[in-house]
Amino acid sequence: MFRNNYDNDSVTFSPQGRIFQVEYAQEAVKQGSVVVGIVSKTHAVLAALKRNAEDLSSYQKKIIPIDAHYGIALAGLASDARVLSNFMKQQSLSSRLTYDRAISLAEITARIGHRAQVNTQHYGKRPYGVGLLIAGVDAKGPHLFEFQPSGVTQEMVACGIGARSQMARTYLERNLDHFEGSSRVELVKHALRALKDSLSQGRELTVDNTSVGVAGISEDFKLYEGQDIASWLDATFENREEGEEGESMEVDT
Amino acid sequence: MFRNNYDNDSVTFSPQGRIFQVEYAQEAVKQGSVVVGIVSKTHAVLAALKRNAEDLSSYQKKIIPIDAHYGIALAGLASDARVLSNFMKQQSLSSRLTYDRAISLAEITARIGHRAQVNTQHYGKRPYGVGLLIAGVDAKGPHLFEFQPSGVTQEMVACGIGARSQMARTYLERNLDHFEGSSRVELVKHALRALKDSLSQGRELTVDNTSVGVAGISEDFKLYEGQDIASWLDATFENREEGEEGESMEVDT
Amino acid sequence: MFRNNYDNDSVTFSPQGRIFQVEYAQEAVKQGSVVVGIVSKTHAVLAALKRNAEDLSSYQKKIIPIDAHYGIALAGLASDARVLSNFMKQQSLSSRLTYDRAISLAEITARIGHRAQVNTQHYGKRPYGVGLLIAGVDAKGPHLFEFQPSGVTQEMVACGIGARSQMARTYLERNLDHFEGSSRVELVKHALRALKDSLSQGRELTVDNTSVGVAGISEDFKLYEGQDIASWLDATFENREEGEEGESMEVDT
Amino acid sequence: MFRNNYDNDSVTFSPQGRIFQVEYAQEAVKQGSVVVGIVSKTHAVLAALKRNAEDLSSYQKKIIPIDAHYGIALAGLASDARVLSNFMKQQSLSSRLTYDRAISLAEITARIGHRAQVNTQHYGKRPYGVGLLIAGVDAKGPHLFEFQPSGVTQEMVACGIGARSQMARTYLERNLDHFEGSSRVELVKHALRALKDSLSQGRELTVDNTSVGVAGISEDFKLYEGQDIASWLDATFENREEGEEGESMEVDT
Amino acid sequence: MFRNNYDNDSVTFSPQGRIFQVEYAQEAVKQGSVVVGIVSKTHAVLAALKRNAEDLSSYQKKIIPIDAHYGIALAGLASDARVLSNFMKQQSLSSRLTYDRAISLAEITARIGHRAQVNTQHYGKRPYGVGLLIAGVDAKGPHLFEFQPSGVTQEMVACGIGARSQMARTYLERNLDHFEGSSRVELVKHALRALKDSLSQGRELTVDNTSVGVAGISEDFKLYEGQDIASWLDATFENREEGEEGESMEVDT
Amino acid sequence: MFRNNYDNDSVTFSPQGRIFQVEYAQEAVKQGSVVVGIVSKTHAVLAALKRNAEDLSSYQKKIIPIDAHYGIALAGLASDARVLSNFMKQQSLSSRLTYDRAISLAEITARIGHRAQVNTQHYGKRPYGVGLLIAGVDAKGPHLFEFQPSGVTQEMVACGIGARSQMARTYLERNLDHFEGSSRVELVKHALRALKDSLSQGRELTVDNTSVGVAGISEDFKLYEGQDIASWLDATFENREEGEEGESMEVDT
Amino acid sequence: MFRNNYDNDSVTFSPQGRIFQVEYAQEAVKQGSVVVGIVSKTHAVLAALKRNAEDLSSYQKKIIPIDAHYGIALAGLASDARVLSNFMKQQSLSSRLTYDRAISLAEITARIGHRAQVNTQHYGKRPYGVGLLIAGVDAKGPHLFEFQPSGVTQEMVACGIGARSQMARTYLERNLDHFEGSSRVELVKHALRALKDSLSQGRELTVDNTSVGVAGISEDFKLYEGQDIASWLDATFENREEGEEGESMEVDT
Repeated sequence: MFRNNYDNDSVTFSPQGRIFQVEYAQEAVKQGSVVVGIVSKTHAVLAALKRNAEDLSSYQKKIIPIDAHYGIALAGLASDARVLSNFMKQQSLSSRLTYDRAISLAEITARIGHRAQVNTQHYGKRPYGVGLLIAGVDAKGPHLFEFQPSGVTQEMVACGIGARSQMARTYLERNLDHFEGSSRVELVKHALRALKDSLSQGRELTVDNTSVGVAGISEDFKLYEGQDIASWLDATFENREEGEEGESMEVDT
Repeated sequence: MFRNNYDNDSVTFSPQGRIFQVEYAQEAVKQGSVVVGIVSKTHAVLAALKRNAEDLSSYQKKIIPIDAHYGIALAGLASDARVLSNFMKQQSLSSRLTYDRAISLAEITARIGHRAQVNTQHYGKRPYGVGLLIAGVDAKGPHLFEFQPSGVTQEMVACGIGARSQMARTYLERNLDHFEGSSRVELVKHALRALKDSLSQGRELTVDNTSVGVAGISEDFKLYEGQDIASWLDATFENREEGEEGESMEVDT
Repeated sequence: MFRNNYDNDSVTFSPQGRIFQVEYAQEAVKQGSVVVGIVSKTHAVLAALKRNAEDLSSYQKKIIPIDAHYGIALAGLASDARVLSNFMKQQSLSSRLTYDRAISLAEITARIGHRAQVNTQHYGKRPYGVGLLIAGVDAKGPHLFEFQPSGVTQEMVACGIGARSQMARTYLERNLDHFEGSSRVELVKHALRALKDSLSQGRELTVDNTSVGVAGISEDFKLYEGQDIASWLDATFENREEGEEGESMEVDT
Repeated sequence: MFRNNYDNDSVTFSPQGRIFQVEYAQEAVKQGSVVVGIVSKTHAVLAALKRNAEDLSSYQKKIIPIDAHYGIALAGLASDARVLSNFMKQQSLSSRLTYDRAISLAEITARIGHRAQVNTQHYGKRPYGVGLLIAGVDAKGPHLFEFQPSGVTQEMVACGIGARSQMARTYLERNLDHFEGSSRVELVKHALRALKDSLSQGRELTVDNTSVGVAGISEDFKLYEGQDIASWLDATFENREEGEEGESMEVDT
Repeated sequence: MFRNNYDNDSVTFSPQGRIFQVEYAQEAVKQGSVVVGIVSKTHAVLAALKRNAEDLSSYQKKIIPIDAHYGIALAGLASDARVLSNFMKQQSLSSRLTYDRAISLAEITARIGHRAQVNTQHYGKRPYGVGLLIAGVDAKGPHLFEFQPSGVTQEMVACGIGARSQMARTYLERNLDHFEGSSRVELVKHALRALKDSLSQGRELTVDNTSVGVAGISEDFKLYEGQDIASWLDATFENREEGEEGESMEVDT
Repeated sequence: MFRNNYDNDSVTFSPQGRIFQVEYAQEAVKQGSVVVGIVSKTHAVLAALKRNAEDLSSYQKKIIPIDAHYGIALAGLASDARVLSNFMKQQSLSSRLTYDRAISLAEITARIGHRAQVNTQHYGKRPYGVGLLIAGVDAKGPHLFEFQPSGVTQEMVACGIGARSQMARTYLERNLDHFEGSSRVELVKHALRALKDSLSQGRELTVDNTSVGVAGISEDFKLYEGQDIASWLDATFENREEGEEGESMEVDT
Repeated sequence: MFRNNYDNDSVTFSPQGRIFQVEYAQEAVKQGSVVVGIVSKTHAVLAALKRNAEDLSSYQKKIIPIDAHYGIALAGLASDARVLSNFMKQQSLSSRLTYDRAISLAEITARIGHRAQVNTQHYGKRPYGVGLLIAGVDAKGPHLFEFQPSGVTQEMVACGIGARSQMARTYLERNLDHFEGSSRVELVKHALRALKDSLSQGRELTVDNTSVGVAGISEDFKLYEGQDIASWLDATFENREEGEEGESMEVDT
């Protein structure tokens, strides 16, 4: 029987140089419902699939505005995401109070990356079980960053994380050349189509299960849900056939 | 023989990205007797099933008033609930003393969620073994929040937690559309009916085993027990047949 | 062979949401000799079975006066009880010095409950291995509280803990309706009868093996032992037949 | 094969509510040579069997004077006893310096009991492996206290601890009624006879292997050894037959 | 079955005096894509293979400028590299602010070596899973240092680390005599050829997958990517045949 | 197969009340070459067998002068001995500086005993692996103390510790009556004879492998080695036959 | 199968009183290439074999000057050696700044010995995996000390540590009588010959693989490498035959 002796904490390397607990934390990201981000020359867009809409909760937070100029989308452990988003809000506020300027997205992303790395190198902690897409516009223009449980962060042109996000990434890679020049609405449409590709067979995006976040040059980051996204959904999937929504198995716990 | 190597503490991910100790703590919630919460446009209501009434204790605290404007219902470890409720009382008092205002329910809920998350990411602690429903009315109107051992919190329209609470949730989901417009007494009745559906075969709600908490716009949160709830019980189950109460197996320890 | 992987410390939940170490600590309570408490509208009474009287120690402390208005009875680890009783004495004294008032029994009970909970949620400590009955009279009248190793505390009308205390509780439940209106001496008699029911076959309560504590409105808590309880014993068991005392197996270690 | 999973530290309860490490520490007491204490209305007496007298050490400290009014006898780990006796000396001195009075024996005993309890409830420490008899005279008269590794302390009329001390205790129980009224010399004789009963077959008490400590009202605690105890030994065992001393297996390490 | 009892942490020596966790950390370096460094009398050059260029990220940081006079190339865990590079930036800045001079490369290398050693001698930490090449020009001329997870650092004439870097090192060893006198462009060509030798069969260096860093006497360290390196690639591999790029398996995680 | 579950640290008692790690530390003492000490009414003498004289080290420190009035002999781990001897030097110096008097040997011995006991009761430390003989003259005359890894210390008339020291102790016990009245030179001879008895077959004491330390009333402690001890050796073993020295297996590591 | 239960940390004694982790650390010393030291009445000399000279590093530090009057040679973990040598440099500098004198070699050696001992008695650390030869001249003349991972330090006339150093020690022991009176160049020759004896079959000492350090009365410690040692090599091995160098397996990691 196989017995892994190297996967019980994040301060132990396997003989191949892997840190399994960090990889397992990445699996927690894959348990979360899919989120997508894309950036153009003028805008940054996030789109997220929310948990089943028929349950009793008013709403599930998949996209969280952090400061006027950016927000995040999350996949994985919601309580870990809250810790990180609170940290980001504090850091962003501190930047405005101290320096009177919006924190750059590269900077705030590096800070949570640094914070996450600490948890992968000290016994008695665990990696954050959540992945984030950080999207917005700062002094250098629109940006999209991906944050991983390992503490790795990288600037992306487009990205999808969470359950079945490989399908979203495939869409994004195929359309990579179109993003830079896309208009605001085109960028939203691309994000929704990428999101749609990650749905299980027979499921559709609806005003109940979809969130969109948009920031642009001279446009603060804003979260759109419910009827606010109806026209985008109609415009994106105008010819779609009526179908039953399947069961969603992935949830952000 | 199956041997789980990943379920001994809350700082270890399983290869599938799960944190078993957090899930096991959730099981402690299911060992507690059922509690239900519903919110309308004007009121927030909690209802709870108390431990067997024939024993020697004067009463069992399933619903705890925290501040003038809200209270909580708990399922799970009572001593963990006391720690959290004391914390909430302090935070609420501090808000009134420092800012002269009632703390918002979203804020107080986020604070206990944050506190609980810490226990899921540091070796040597354990998750809280209790679930809470936080119900009341703040500056933004009536609210109901659910708190889970994982630190996840979410605003709910209606919710049931504890032993056999799935039956309560099924009732709540079926009647979801009626809550927003319900009157105070209708909301109490819905809560009692949901609670009743979670009882084991042959048991009934009585003035001895039932607690109700109500807050409304311009109505402070108040706990109702004993004869104070007799008329509600009569009005809700007026035609019920006389039956023997069964044995309750679930207890909050 | 059954191997329990979840019972080695108090920061690990079992897959069923149980914390075994807390339950095992409760077993330590059951190793202690039985103590009983009852409260009426005017008085609070404790009664305790002391360790075999033939040994060399002058006396065994089963009932400890804490402050003028209340005392405790203990079952389980005597050294743990001393730590808790010292803590209660300090807190009670502090209340008198700081606020010039007797601490309420609900308050002092909540404080030891809080203290005990901490030991169930931090690695490297263990739950207290002792159960307490806290009895006395404060500004709100007579009270009886039970404290458990889990940190759970609850107000009781009557209660019995320790070895074979189930028999005492059965007596108490059967006579529950009589307590509220009982006179001082009737309450003592009830307590002694409940205590007697928990003795093993053939054993009797004597002036050597029995302690009684009484507090009342306008009557400070006082411990009665030896000849001071002779008349109570005679009045309670006046017709009892002469019998050999059996061996007592339970001891408070 | 039996495998005890609950006996590796003093912060783990067994399923029966036992703390094995504390019980094992008590075994260390039984490895020490026997010591005996008795108290009368006027005097407190300690008697101890010293390690084999033929070895190279000048003497073995089984009885240690702590303050003018009391001393201790020890059985078990000598280095643990030194830590505790140093602590007692400091506390006693502090009482004299701060309050200008001799510390009460009940108080000093409670303090080492408290200190010992801490070691039974914190991971990374171990219980003290030594038992003590604390004997002397304070403002309330002569006293004898027993201290156990568990932190349990109790006032005794007479007590014996260490190897084969059960025989000493049997003697003491049989003569319990005589102690209160005994004269100084009678009390010493009782102690020596009890000590003698714990010797292995064929061994005798001699001026080389016996220590006696005595305190009385208006008589400071004093340690007697060598020829100072010859007359007591002669008076106590005047008719004893000449015999070879056997090997003593028990030692205080 | 072989079971290694000595490879679970970096504070345990094997019976042969090895510290396996440090060796495993070295394996993490080998999982990263290859980087190469060479130093001449006048210049220091770094060259790196970036992760597959077809994915969605804008770029992958394999070479990081630290101060005006030097930069680093990394192979292994990117988040560990960020921690170390941030530390180097702070130390370098501090040197300029405090002493108004560029920190020497030997000094900054020794500091990260010291920092890394600490992680190999304290339980609860893990070695850094990244190797670095530190290249630049200080008061003593051009330098190249290698940093290993063990904390070992050494000055090199040329070096290659990362996946298949053995091939690069073989090239470097064969051409060792040419480096000292090489011109700036010749040194870059050597670095690119060494890098090329570590590619898997059929892969080529392109403007998309190659980074180059150059510092020289009177020339600040600068990172070159994309079209900035086109002419170097052309000049180095002018006669290369057109080929399909193979799959790169090595990634810096 | 026997498997000892109680011998991995010094905070765990075995079911028989033993602390194995302390006993194992005592074994380290037995790995050291033998040292002997004797005290008379006027002098205190130490004698020690040094490691094989043919190796490359100038000398091995088996006897260490600590203060003008005393020194120590050691058997076991030399680096542990250095820590303890440094501590003793500091304490002795402090006594002279603060109180202008030589520290008593009983006092300094108690202090290292106390320090050693701490290491037997706290997890994460280990007992000192060295035994000491402390010999010298203080205000109360000549003294000899033995220090053991357990923290046990006792005053001795004569003592031998280290490899084969049982033979030395046998000699000492047989001549116990002669020591008190011995002259300085007689005491040294006794010590050398006892030391000789612990040598393996065929080995002899020589000026190269023997150290002697002497202190007396009005005579500071002094270490004698090499030719300084030639006359003592000659006088003690004047008739000895010439023999090959055997291999010494015991070493102080 | 043999299973050693006592070799996982340096705070556990084996039943034979050994500390295996300290012994394993000594094995790390044996993995390092050999270094040799000799002291005469006027000089102290170190000689070291460097790692294979054909690799890319400029040089490997086997001998490190610490202060004007002394230096060290190391065998084992290079990063551990750097920590110790930095500590020695600080201590030496501090001595010059505070007392205006060169630290004595006995003192600096005792300090690193003390520091190393701490790592053998505290859980969570590990012994240093490096051996050192400390050589130089202080106020008392030339000295050579050996430092071992156990913290043991001893003054030596001559010493060799590292891979195959037994051969070097054999040479040194055979020529022990010649060292004291040797001239500077004779001492260097002895050191080189001892070093040569530890080489594997067919290997030779060359200007590339050999380092020499020399200090004398009125001669500061200086490191000699490359052509600086050519004449010494020629003079020492003038008649040696030309041979292929074998593979060196030992490396300082």
